[in-house]
Amino acid sequence: MGRMLLLEKAAGGQVEGYALIRRADVRTNVKGAEYMDLVLADTGGEIPAKLWDYRKEEHGEYSAGDVVKVRAQINLWKDAEQLKIEKIRYAAPGEADMAELVPCAPVDPVAAYAAILKTVSEFGDEDIRALTQSILTKNREKLLLYPAAVKLHHATRGGLAHHTLSVLRLAKAVAEAYPCLRRDLLYAGVILHDIGKLREMDADETGLADAYTAEGMLIGHICIGVIDVALAAKELGTPADKVLCLEHMLLAHHGQPEFGSPKYPMFPEAEVLSQLDMLDSRLYEMQAALEGVREGGFSERQWALDNRQLYRIPWEDKDGGN
Amino acid sequence: MGRMLLLEKAAGGQVEGYALIRRADVRTNVKGAEYMDLVLADTGGEIPAKLWDYRKEEHGEYSAGDVVKVRAQINLWKDAEQLKIEKIRYAAPGEADMAELVPCAPVDPVAAYAAILKTVSEFGDEDIRALTQSILTKNREKLLLYPAAVKLHHATRGGLAHHTLSVLRLAKAVAEAYPCLRRDLLYAGVILHDIGKLREMDADETGLADAYTAEGMLIGHICIGVIDVALAAKELGTPADKVLCLEHMLLAHHGQPEFGSPKYPMFPEAEVLSQLDMLDSRLYEMQAALEGVREGGFSERQWALDNRQLYRIPWEDKDGGN
Amino acid sequence: MGRMLLLEKAAGGQVEGYALIRRADVRTNVKGAEYMDLVLADTGGEIPAKLWDYRKEEHGEYSAGDVVKVRAQINLWKDAEQLKIEKIRYAAPGEADMAELVPCAPVDPVAAYAAILKTVSEFGDEDIRALTQSILTKNREKLLLYPAAVKLHHATRGGLAHHTLSVLRLAKAVAEAYPCLRRDLLYAGVILHDIGKLREMDADETGLADAYTAEGMLIGHICIGVIDVALAAKELGTPADKVLCLEHMLLAHHGQPEFGSPKYPMFPEAEVLSQLDMLDSRLYEMQAALEGVREGGFSERQWALDNRQLYRIPWEDKDGGN
Amino acid sequence: MGRMLLLEKAAGGQVEGYALIRRADVRTNVKGAEYMDLVLADTGGEIPAKLWDYRKEEHGEYSAGDVVKVRAQINLWKDAEQLKIEKIRYAAPGEADMAELVPCAPVDPVAAYAAILKTVSEFGDEDIRALTQSILTKNREKLLLYPAAVKLHHATRGGLAHHTLSVLRLAKAVAEAYPCLRRDLLYAGVILHDIGKLREMDADETGLADAYTAEGMLIGHICIGVIDVALAAKELGTPADKVLCLEHMLLAHHGQPEFGSPKYPMFPEAEVLSQLDMLDSRLYEMQAALEGVREGGFSERQWALDNRQLYRIPWEDKDGGN
Amino acid sequence: MGRMLLLEKAAGGQVEGYALIRRADVRTNVKGAEYMDLVLADTGGEIPAKLWDYRKEEHGEYSAGDVVKVRAQINLWKDAEQLKIEKIRYAAPGEADMAELVPCAPVDPVAAYAAILKTVSEFGDEDIRALTQSILTKNREKLLLYPAAVKLHHATRGGLAHHTLSVLRLAKAVAEAYPCLRRDLLYAGVILHDIGKLREMDADETGLADAYTAEGMLIGHICIGVIDVALAAKELGTPADKVLCLEHMLLAHHGQPEFGSPKYPMFPEAEVLSQLDMLDSRLYEMQAALEGVREGGFSERQWALDNRQLYRIPWEDKDGGN
Amino acid sequence: MGRMLLLEKAAGGQVEGYALIRRADVRTNVKGAEYMDLVLADTGGEIPAKLWDYRKEEHGEYSAGDVVKVRAQINLWKDAEQLKIEKIRYAAPGEADMAELVPCAPVDPVAAYAAILKTVSEFGDEDIRALTQSILTKNREKLLLYPAAVKLHHATRGGLAHHTLSVLRLAKAVAEAYPCLRRDLLYAGVILHDIGKLREMDADETGLADAYTAEGMLIGHICIGVIDVALAAKELGTPADKVLCLEHMLLAHHGQPEFGSPKYPMFPEAEVLSQLDMLDSRLYEMQAALEGVREGGFSERQWALDNRQLYRIPWEDKDGGN
Repeated sequence: MGRMLLLEKAAGGQVEGYALIRRADVRTNVKGAEYMDLVLADTGGEIPAKLWDYRKEEHGEYSAGDVVKVRAQINLWKDAEQLKIEKIRYAAPGEADMAELVPCAPVDPVAAYAAILKTVSEFGDEDIRALTQSILTKNREKLLLYPAAVKLHHATRGGLAHHTLSVLRLAKAVAEAYPCLRRDLLYAGVILHDIGKLREMDADETGLADAYTAEGMLIGHICIGVIDVALAAKELGTPADKVLCLEHMLLAHHGQPEFGSPKYPMFPEAEVLSQLDMLDSRLYEMQAALEGVREGGFSERQWALDNRQLYRIPWEDKDGGN
Repeated sequence: MGRMLLLEKAAGGQVEGYALIRRADVRTNVKGAEYMDLVLADTGGEIPAKLWDYRKEEHGEYSAGDVVKVRAQINLWKDAEQLKIEKIRYAAPGEADMAELVPCAPVDPVAAYAAILKTVSEFGDEDIRALTQSILTKNREKLLLYPAAVKLHHATRGGLAHHTLSVLRLAKAVAEAYPCLRRDLLYAGVILHDIGKLREMDADETGLADAYTAEGMLIGHICIGVIDVALAAKELGTPADKVLCLEHMLLAHHGQPEFGSPKYPMFPEAEVLSQLDMLDSRLYEMQAALEGVREGGFSERQWALDNRQLYRIPWEDKDGGN
Repeated sequence: MGRMLLLEKAAGGQVEGYALIRRADVRTNVKGAEYMDLVLADTGGEIPAKLWDYRKEEHGEYSAGDVVKVRAQINLWKDAEQLKIEKIRYAAPGEADMAELVPCAPVDPVAAYAAILKTVSEFGDEDIRALTQSILTKNREKLLLYPAAVKLHHATRGGLAHHTLSVLRLAKAVAEAYPCLRRDLLYAGVILHDIGKLREMDADETGLADAYTAEGMLIGHICIGVIDVALAAKELGTPADKVLCLEHMLLAHHGQPEFGSPKYPMFPEAEVLSQLDMLDSRLYEMQAALEGVREGGFSERQWALDNRQLYRIPWEDKDGGN
Repeated sequence: MGRMLLLEKAAGGQVEGYALIRRADVRTNVKGAEYMDLVLADTGGEIPAKLWDYRKEEHGEYSAGDVVKVRAQINLWKDAEQLKIEKIRYAAPGEADMAELVPCAPVDPVAAYAAILKTVSEFGDEDIRALTQSILTKNREKLLLYPAAVKLHHATRGGLAHHTLSVLRLAKAVAEAYPCLRRDLLYAGVILHDIGKLREMDADETGLADAYTAEGMLIGHICIGVIDVALAAKELGTPADKVLCLEHMLLAHHGQPEFGSPKYPMFPEAEVLSQLDMLDSRLYEMQAALEGVREGGFSERQWALDNRQLYRIPWEDKDGGN
Repeated sequence: MGRMLLLEKAAGGQVEGYALIRRADVRTNVKGAEYMDLVLADTGGEIPAKLWDYRKEEHGEYSAGDVVKVRAQINLWKDAEQLKIEKIRYAAPGEADMAELVPCAPVDPVAAYAAILKTVSEFGDEDIRALTQSILTKNREKLLLYPAAVKLHHATRGGLAHHTLSVLRLAKAVAEAYPCLRRDLLYAGVILHDIGKLREMDADETGLADAYTAEGMLIGHICIGVIDVALAAKELGTPADKVLCLEHMLLAHHGQPEFGSPKYPMFPEAEVLSQLDMLDSRLYEMQAALEGVREGGFSERQWALDNRQLYRIPWEDKDGGN
Repeated sequence: MGRMLLLEKAAGGQVEGYALIRRADVRTNVKGAEYMDLVLADTGGEIPAKLWDYRKEEHGEYSAGDVVKVRAQINLWKDAEQLKIEKIRYAAPGEADMAELVPCAPVDPVAAYAAILKTVSEFGDEDIRALTQSILTKNREKLLLYPAAVKLHHATRGGLAHHTLSVLRLAKAVAEAYPCLRRDLLYAGVILHDIGKLREMDADETGLADAYTAEGMLIGHICIGVIDVALAAKELGTPADKVLCLEHMLLAHHGQPEFGSPKYPMFPEAEVLSQLDMLDSRLYEMQAALEGVREGGFSERQWALDNRQLYRIPWEDKDGGN
């Protein structure tokens, strides 16, 4: 872990700016006075901090995951930096730049959401268009925020929208190559395939999720998504055969029973979704695993990749005009 | 295959009574006249039959699965019996005794349905009671009719109600032995566990099913049942945690992913349901496999039972007062 | 770990009562004098203890697993309680209440054994009755004591008799529901199914087992049980076909090769035994795993349950008159 | 099987044109004269044919797989058409339109080969370019001809080039979406991944293969390809690390040991190759399986697709401007 | 199937000699007279035979598996040879040369048995020697006769002794190479490893077995063998640790649970037995599979060898002085 | 870890002799002077050592794996022995007795290599002889040094030659017992089966390997060996069918896909190689696992042996004249 971005902006031993609270405990010193013992963090690193003479009524209550604005002195304690907080308050929604506080997807969620919605608006099949739009609209707020996983691939703020858009882009390339595929159905399946993750995980305002919900544990995002489609379809009166195909695509998108899909993909569009979902996830995880590996060296064993050790190709790339 | 029950009631070479049509084709004889070539059946056996001078307007149209009343002459053709039909018409609903026409479960579906409903009416938890009653009531007609499978265990008219009642009886015995189990939840899970089969298969009026529906193939009875519960719960406003537990019980009732359940049972009631469902199915199939095996002999290999060959115990049973 | 029951009965800083020795080492202090350094325990907790001026001839020799009566002072050492032993001796058999010293099954082993034996006495088939009685009688002493496992399900004093009785009760309920089952054979199989565990583990007088015997490791309780039946049958001259069926029930009671049974259950009674054995074990382990889990929360992953995390249902149970 | 294309061009009961010999036997009639009994075929169907008064010296020798030009009379024998051959000779290479005689890939092999070669010529890395060109050039003749499989996906004349080009097109789309991928390496891997099939199967001039070679059976196309790369690299002096990466891509392209790859893909380019190879094969097989299935119906179980039955989507596609 | 050896010895259209009855039915001709319709066989082939004017009292009763001496006329019926029996009687034990009637192991069972017994007599450990001798002696008669399997490897008269001796020879070679192995234990395990097959199969006097016994089906030769050792050891009072090791060797000799051994081999001698047993069986089956395959060709798929197709090496062997 | 052999030869608190450097770091003391901090080792144990006043130009540079000659004083520091180095230099090749410095195979690699080469020289088939000789000769130096594994079986200096010779000895015993086996082919396969390990691992002069090479990770010794044979065969012009059989033996020698062999052994010689390779490896690992286990006790679980715990047989061996 490196040094917090916040500290880089220090002036005269004093910092002022935004931070994510990683841990916050109220303690009592030997004189019986309460103080707050915190760890603050941003994407650069983390630092211990103290708020002496803590008074709940005056300073407010804080816990892990909160985003705050602080003003503080940088002190040294046992050879390490520590903050002495002078002022602290909650950051208003939108006030802090979340990209500096938590790992964020490399695409802007608002733009990603818009791009996805635009694709839906071009569907020729009104039933599928209406159903997809309805679910997207209902879940807009979470879609701008949620990661694609608690751990593993795309575990970043906005990671779900990022992953969805990546798979959609691949799907368009494949549909180009195989004209027999039904585009509306394929794209709708891609766009909705992980919608159940919005109820499977419980992400806070940082856009990261610490744990699964009870629903996520007991039902799982695959079947939650199927239920979401069924409920929306009932509301809209979507024709049964179209609902059925969409439900199947969600149900089968992990490809086989031992990966969580009770049914194998049974038509080409479902197969394409399943494979592209895996392709995007694998490439994401492989690149993450290779970060920091020296050229010609191997990564640690990757549990999520059948225990593979990944190789960093050593020679210089000379890709030409390809 | 033995001799039809219908033939046993013949008088003066003539029969009159009810039969199930197994096959019905309209053909043209060498003179260009149409006749109908049928196979009629009841639980005793089957017989070929001819309806000469067939006229659609007069005789009506028939196909496999129809229940008819016929009057006919018994002829011999190539050393085998054959019927020459004199009169044929559809049997009115309830007119024929289905127990003579198709294999029926050994319990009366109406009584089974009533016994199940009575158990539900005694639930202390109103939410679970209302939800279970609502689904049972909506599906009453099919529940009086449906088999539990296309092939395999309980593939009989009324087999689903029979299987449900058997598992319910076992569940009551287990709940007796383990008081920590929640009875309402356990019984509700048992009663609804196969409800998705009413949409997975397409049984006709005989109460037997030839094939799976598209929904059955693409979604499967496990997830169909979960969707059914979700839709009913939305209508009734059932509290989320109770719906969740019931959905989980249906989802997990095959015990593990490779048997079609994306989740393992995660609380004791779900585990009990899963195991008793298997116990009842296995005993049914074992008894079926042992039919006709000599004492001390072995059955054929049973595909649905891990290729086991079953043994018929040879010595005389002397169970005492146990 | 909580506080020893023994300490709760302290009077004037002095305790007197029974304890289990968890660890006992003879050490030498700086002056060259020997003392005994012990850890004493009962079901409430454990405590370090010292026996100064230890003399083997006077005090006797002690080791882990011994049950002793002690009189001691409660001292504080480094902020923690410690016992200074004044008097120590072996407890006579039956003198101490084992239920206060080690985790015990919730049923009295003597009563459990009697109930099992009564069921056997009611068998109509004299061969099976004699064989079962002979094996039970020969192993009475161990059956009153042994746990059902080194770790995992029913690892309590008397746990084996407890487990056997639980499965027997389930078997009676199932036999009620399926009259075609042979009761004598089923019950005999249930009663003897884990008899091999008496040689697979090496339980001491506490009724707990630390490890497997060489026989347990190299042969396993399944085949040991089969051998026990074969030897007893030879002595009694039991008819071959009955021996064969009983041996098969023991051999097949883990259900399939990867769980240790070289044969799948090949008749209904063997199948019922196998499934009820698993049902009772699973429920025991699930309840153990759920102990201490908050409502609506999940347990740790359970290795013995396919890594499941178990869910504690959060709402209040309102089971009615069911 | 339908009617031969050749017969559609008949004039006055006489046909003249090209055919594939499916079977050819020399027989002796009752008078002791030899005649040739053949079955001729093209992509439309097949027909029995007789060449009476067969004389080896005059007519030449023929066997299954030969392409011939024939002139013949159409006769009826036992209500079926049959040819009486008047003239027969071998077709010169290139004389017959193979597309009418055997199932051909939908892309022209010459064009496919040229497109592949053009991609290679644009590689920026001279080592990889030279190695890939060398192998392609050495195998040009077979690459214009070979199917991708004995049975299963792309079992058509020119099917290997077709499959290679399809995967290459997908690879270009993926490389577009993930700029971190090394294009030269990825494309070289794609182009060479099935090169071992040219020695694994023994295709005749029709471009179809009846069986595997001994080399194919004992070594398999995966390792044959690796050996081919190693031999070519030795000749050209390709740097060791580049050879290694290419060899690994071939070795790992079936993704995992149970599918024939002793190593899992260990860098992103190898993973992409493996997944796109599977995607193209699966889509090919799914479309083949769905041929002739009615809308809303299911195909037979597909052995090569985990026994899935494929569903033909019933509603009319209205893909818009996507 | 070729021509019976019996027919090769015909003189003047008449044969006399020994045959195995493969099938024997008493039938009634149109005139109401009984005759016997048989199929006779030896290792050369089989032939239909008739015994006209059959009288039970005079000719005796016959059934499949009986060895008989016959005198008969060779007739032609529908272009095929058939025997008209003139005289028939049972062959006395030892009268016929079984090697001409059924496939026999290539070693003489009496010699094999003697060689095995000699090895035992040289054991230095008296306990193991006595135990092994006792079991061998008790089963001598069957050991001279039994095949090693119903189907598959060593399914020949005397095949069990043959297989045992082969593995013993290999074990001696391995013991030579690894002096740390205990020879007495290893050889005793080898000699007894398949002893349970004598009760698993039911071979008749021909030394071939058509089917498994009920004991074989329900218990299997592995556990039967363990029981046999346990019973013999009890009789002889063999020390417990030696019995345990021998029992373990039998129990573990299939190597792993999915092949029928509930325990993996847990000491080197058990591992050696398990591997040599497999080596001898595999080589036997491979040689059988390769019989009749052309040089450079492949056998059919071998179910018992993981569906492998075996290759017949085509070049001429020039093994030198090795 | 015990005491170094070097220390046993100490005289007057001074030692002189050879050691392996396990760790060597140059550090700076509080006065700014450089010293070298080492750990020295031989097969007896290891010891920390200091070289004060270290000067690179004078003393040379050292790192882990180097073999050195040292003269040093034995000091005590914090109750433990430590060396103060007075003189240090590299040992010349062959100067030190490696058998005292690293675990060595129990056979002399030079003798083992010679024995292997002698077997090859006796091959009757010149093609196989030339090919095998060529590969052996090219790799002589490494073959005298390399272990058979990084960890696991035969991870000793010269372990590969040792393992090869052991399997060869077994192969000769098996060839004796099954004369139908082709000896030249079998022995050549045995001799070359692990040749790829010379490129899979990177052993230093000690004859031990710390890690796999990139080639080892990405291709693996099985396919590396196949490539080696293919390259050598091309150079020598070995007939294709013989190369094919040898390549197959190497490719299949792990027996099945999940153990790294893409093909099952498809002729008897390949099967024998595969089984004997496993037998020798297993026995080696079992003996290693049993080292230090008490009689009648069990080893730790062995990951490389399916998690088995191995049993040390307790009774005294009395092998007789066998």
